[in-house]
Amino acid sequence: MALRARALYDFNSENPGEVSVKENEILTLYSEQDIEGWLEGVNSKGERGLFPASYVEILRNDATSTYANIPSGGFNAFPPPALQRQPPQQQQQQQHTYQSPGQVSDDDWDDDWDDSSTVADEPGTVGGRYHDYEGNGPSTYRVSTSSMSRGNAQQAKSSATVSRNLNRFSTFVKSGGEAFVLGEASGFVKDGDKICVVMGQYGPEWQENPYPFTCAIDDPTKQTKFKGMKSYISYKLTPTHTQNQVNRRYKHFDWLYARLVEKFPVISVPHIPEKQATGRFEEDFISKRRKGLIWWMNHMTSHPVLARCDVFQHFLTCNSADEKAWKQGKRKAEKDEMVGANFFLTISTPASPLDFQEVESKIDGFKTFTKRMDDSTLQLNATVNEFARKQISGFKKEYQKVGMSFKVLSQAFEMDQQVYSTGLNQAISFTGDAYEAIGEYFAEQPSKDLDPIMDLLALYQGHLANYPDIIHVQKGALTKVKESQKHVEEGKMDRAQAEGINERCNIISCATLAEIQHFHQIRVRDFKAQMQHYLQQQISFFQKITGKLEEALQKYDNA
Amino acid sequence: MALRARALYDFNSENPGEVSVKENEILTLYSEQDIEGWLEGVNSKGERGLFPASYVEILRNDATSTYANIPSGGFNAFPPPALQRQPPQQQQQQQHTYQSPGQVSDDDWDDDWDDSSTVADEPGTVGGRYHDYEGNGPSTYRVSTSSMSRGNAQQAKSSATVSRNLNRFSTFVKSGGEAFVLGEASGFVKDGDKICVVMGQYGPEWQENPYPFTCAIDDPTKQTKFKGMKSYISYKLTPTHTQNQVNRRYKHFDWLYARLVEKFPVISVPHIPEKQATGRFEEDFISKRRKGLIWWMNHMTSHPVLARCDVFQHFLTCNSADEKAWKQGKRKAEKDEMVGANFFLTISTPASPLDFQEVESKIDGFKTFTKRMDDSTLQLNATVNEFARKQISGFKKEYQKVGMSFKVLSQAFEMDQQVYSTGLNQAISFTGDAYEAIGEYFAEQPSKDLDPIMDLLALYQGHLANYPDIIHVQKGALTKVKESQKHVEEGKMDRAQAEGINERCNIISCATLAEIQHFHQIRVRDFKAQMQHYLQQQISFFQKITGKLEEALQKYDNA
Repeated sequence: MALRARALYDFNSENPGEVSVKENEILTLYSEQDIEGWLEGVNSKGERGLFPASYVEILRNDATSTYANIPSGGFNAFPPPALQRQPPQQQQQQQHTYQSPGQVSDDDWDDDWDDSSTVADEPGTVGGRYHDYEGNGPSTYRVSTSSMSRGNAQQAKSSATVSRNLNRFSTFVKSGGEAFVLGEASGFVKDGDKICVVMGQYGPEWQENPYPFTCAIDDPTKQTKFKGMKSYISYKLTPTHTQNQVNRRYKHFDWLYARLVEKFPVISVPHIPEKQATGRFEEDFISKRRKGLIWWMNHMTSHPVLARCDVFQHFLTCNSADEKAWKQGKRKAEKDEMVGANFFLTISTPASPLDFQEVESKIDGFKTFTKRMDDSTLQLNATVNEFARKQISGFKKEYQKVGMSFKVLSQAFEMDQQVYSTGLNQAISFTGDAYEAIGEYFAEQPSKDLDPIMDLLALYQGHLANYPDIIHVQKGALTKVKESQKHVEEGKMDRAQAEGINERCNIISCATLAEIQHFHQIRVRDFKAQMQHYLQQQISFFQKITGKLEEALQKYDNA
Repeated sequence: MALRARALYDFNSENPGEVSVKENEILTLYSEQDIEGWLEGVNSKGERGLFPASYVEILRNDATSTYANIPSGGFNAFPPPALQRQPPQQQQQQQHTYQSPGQVSDDDWDDDWDDSSTVADEPGTVGGRYHDYEGNGPSTYRVSTSSMSRGNAQQAKSSATVSRNLNRFSTFVKSGGEAFVLGEASGFVKDGDKICVVMGQYGPEWQENPYPFTCAIDDPTKQTKFKGMKSYISYKLTPTHTQNQVNRRYKHFDWLYARLVEKFPVISVPHIPEKQATGRFEEDFISKRRKGLIWWMNHMTSHPVLARCDVFQHFLTCNSADEKAWKQGKRKAEKDEMVGANFFLTISTPASPLDFQEVESKIDGFKTFTKRMDDSTLQLNATVNEFARKQISGFKKEYQKVGMSFKVLSQAFEMDQQVYSTGLNQAISFTGDAYEAIGEYFAEQPSKDLDPIMDLLALYQGHLANYPDIIHVQKGALTKVKESQKHVEEGKMDRAQAEGINERCNIISCATLAEIQHFHQIRVRDFKAQMQHYLQQQISFFQKITGKLEEALQKYDNA
């Protein structure tokens, strides 16, 4: 008998691959196993496609049992591109250096876990489109379910009178922000896990890392295993605080990234460079990815909270050769209790609570700021991208055409055998060469000055894409505060409970403002450094051109 | 009764406005007055158009009288563009700064002779297409008829057995080269008219001007006459050898140019800047024309023969206010006997005659050279023209778009009120301004460096357009030598007559090689100077950009 489900809410498809469903519509399912929170089936009109698992209840032998409407992939799910709802502007970002992590290309098939993959795991050999979610053994994406089941369990014992968000896709819910504010998070916070927000000159800020360090990423080298049947690129990481080199692969970064996103609800985890299906062993790609990883690493080590967290330290320090130690740390990180809602338990705030009205105004200001910054970085990125393209093609061509024309003229002049003409002919020929060289300079320049700008913008566009969720969590908390105040006034909630919500909202607000403060500080640092670098490179570039022209001019002295 | 003519030869029309005629075909004429050697009429098929006056005989009352088939305009005729046969390549030149003087646009209507024009002489008011040849009183083009009538007269008394060229459009014939070689030229050569070709290091060359001078062209100013109803631009000319300023108008240059072309058959007279129908009083045009006239003047004063000739000296030195003296000199120049064929009488050659085989090889080499130089200057001109266009539009736009994007970014950043961000915001804003300024630099630059290159190329393209005719005259003379040798061998010509042809061919060859030598010398001088100027300007340009960027970079120091 076909598996069927009833729609609980209306759902309007917005992307290819989705189908619209109406409340109470009966759907035929292909499988009751959801894919990152989505189910595939046929609606009553016979249209086939995907719809949110949480919008339907599965019908079992005529007995109606509500589908456990928490996406099994958890909040760190990577839905396939076609399923991911994103505003047009974010879709535009796909053309930039980094993609949002939501845009997983079906790549890195032979770059999967050593301990689970086999040589047979070649692209297209197992499973279909969602292969890495379904057929890949104990995948990184599965693991997080445990934390969500726990969240689910906590939810079950909740007795709060403050309304619960029905939208299971809400970041406020997914991040654990709601559970925390409602007082449902609990866990044992070790001293080492304690994260301090202190009151700084400009408001709440993360306590500085007392042991700052950086980490070099060098020598990407191609490694092989299974007698050369599988290849991957290994990077040498050398953190300054240990001076011990460790080797890491892209998939390790990817795994770490997933852990961090899962663990820190209001911290903007820098996006790792995008995945790429083909050409992963080409020099250009490797160099580009390394630069992306360096940028990422710089933002990781600069962040007072991220830099110090256990999973990152494990990643940086665990001896790559000691497989047992690595797996131990990996499992520990995957079982970390202090993630999501519980992360907020680890935060210690300044003594005086924040003025929520002021917080709200600050957050709103920042929201406007990120919108403007996002628009302007998008525009700058498009301009710079086009400028690079023009220099590589058009500018180069124009200068080289001038060079070529000078050379053709000198060749015509060489037909005149007059002695007094020889010097001039050579000088014009040299000028032609100089302009061809200048054309080449123009083509080479963007990799020196515009590419770093684009790398910077891509990294920041990643951050800017994180902030709507972060802001959403804080705003969700604030809404709960307002609701609880209303409930208290109406006598539906006791003052102590409301007080708890207030306190927990203060924690979320402190963390959010600290994160915003950190964002501004690294933004000013990074943009200053990059603008200086860009201008220095541009100056060198124009000086190099000037030098070449001066060399050409000298040739005329004795012509 | 309609005026009729009989075709003496076949003529195949090749351009719009012409009609083909067959030998013995009877044609109906509109007027027996030819227009620069062309008659207008209807052929037996009823097709209306122009054909060469020299190809027909006019039928008068059934009495056949041969039309004086020498174009009344002489070799300096300026047929309207539609009538002028020119290879496609020369047609291409029309897009360049200078046009060949053959391309007379119907402009300068109110710029005609003071002593003949009236206010009524406005475009379109009198006559039709050939207005300036027909309705303009004693025009510059009419005057030359006298010399050609004389040539005709000389022709009548010729008794040479060497065949005469039937093609009356041949430069060899038109220039008077043929008449001279055949010994038909005669005239009294004054000492002051003597032009010396000396044997130099590289072969025959013009004797240097013992009194070299230059001439400044300044202050183009708008003048009016007839109570402001007519306007023209007057240029102040100050030759260094007199230091007396004279005022000249474009039409004076035009008149002088016509005199020079008429007088010197194997000298490449630099072309004057093209005529222009509209916008003659616009600042850009005036500045451009002045530059063109300066180039022209430079080539005139640099030429040992042209610089010293009477008509040029009259032009340079005659007090503009002394109308009587001006008209006297003008009439004298127009009645000059030592033009065309007679010009060769004024040439004194080195003692030893040239080896004609060597001459032929040199001329052939130069012919190849001019072809190559013409091709390469055309290409360079097109490239440079496009390069200028790109800098003015594309390059400017790209740099300004980058500037604008930086400014937009700084505006977004200004939304963040953090104190530590202010310096950066200002620096980025300044960088944006710097890039907008750099865009402007790119747009301004071509007028400083590429325009002079284009002016140079245009002037040389004028010279290169002159050389086929010059080479044609020399080759015609050489052909006559070969024919005469054959005739002597066949006993059809006495040795003395052939000797005379030889001697006269030697004169033409000496003059031609001297002119070629002069061409190479000024070419090397001009291209060296212009390439140096170009590179110096380019260096300043890139230094200016570097300076602007350094200024921007400094803004980050305290950001």
